[in-house]
Amino acid sequence: MKRMRIVLIVVGSLIGVVALMAAASGPPDGGAGGEAAAAISGGKLPTGYRDWRLISVAHEAGDLNDFRAILGNDVAIRAYREEKLPFPDGTIIVRLAWSYIASEENNKVFGRAQSFVAGAPINVQLMVKDSRRYAATGGWGFAQFKDGKPADEAVHKTCSGGHESAKARDFVFTHYSP
Amino acid sequence: MKRMRIVLIVVGSLIGVVALMAAASGPPDGGAGGEAAAAISGGKLPTGYRDWRLISVAHEAGDLNDFRAILGNDVAIRAYREEKLPFPDGTIIVRLAWSYIASEENNKVFGRAQSFVAGAPINVQLMVKDSRRYAATGGWGFAQFKDGKPADEAVHKTCSGGHESAKARDFVFTHYSP
Repeated sequence: MKRMRIVLIVVGSLIGVVALMAAASGPPDGGAGGEAAAAISGGKLPTGYRDWRLISVAHEAGDLNDFRAILGNDVAIRAYREEKLPFPDGTIIVRLAWSYIASEENNKVFGRAQSFVAGAPINVQLMVKDSRRYAATGGWGFAQFKDGKPADEAVHKTCSGGHESAKARDFVFTHYSP
Repeated sequence: MKRMRIVLIVVGSLIGVVALMAAASGPPDGGAGGEAAAAISGGKLPTGYRDWRLISVAHEAGDLNDFRAILGNDVAIRAYREEKLPFPDGTIIVRLAWSYIASEENNKVFGRAQSFVAGAPINVQLMVKDSRRYAATGGWGFAQFKDGKPADEAVHKTCSGGHESAKARDFVFTHYSP
């Protein structure tokens, strides 16, 4: 009986600790970003990035002709909502792009050609803040993935130049949409 | 000593149960949707809806001229990813709309007028699945909020008619974007 009670105490406490850890971890990979950042620098898309929260949306017409959703990990979302600049280390911003297509089924409902939706995925781009590791490019590391595979290093080297013009906002173009 | 051990067993088990409940609840209000659904039927926006995960994006041109992001609670996201139709009770889909504006700062970077972003918020619309409560309208309750305040009942009565044309997809227009 005595041994059984001790076992029960230990089991009860272990359940408590494990469950508390699970509760504290929040949404998958939405946390501190260390694991996600390591995945990106290792040429992999971070697990669970598609579950990150929405920052805003955009449409690039012209040659790009895409629809965009910009998501952020927990560090990014917190910084945006607290209007904190520069973004703290651990921030990861991910930009999903799909083709920009007219929705025939929606247009039927509206009775005119006015509805545009996201089509096939184009690619995924990420910005990772690590002020030491990426000191040469404003503290940001850049990555692009297509079908889950990283682009050549040559592509990544072009990113920071484009973002230079957003220097006043820590090289980030996207504003948060409430 | 005997009483102390029993107390420890009870406390250990309680910690386990409470923490497991917390772990199971997931992100804020992203869970079963009961609390969120009650808020909506009570004329309130559900807490934490802005933290829900992204289903897709859209643009309505013409008179609406808006940018849209469609988010879903956990039940909605799971049903979309498992391609489950009809959507189960507890599904909540929220459509955020902002004005559709040209981004002068982005256009400067691209060197041409091609960039469109989300401007000021317009309104928020929600669909709540409760097959008993909303049996008369295909199992869906509809709500619209502007600046956090619900629209008149007259507005809500117009919603189900519009969604009728998407009957084959359980009255939901938006497709999931991977």
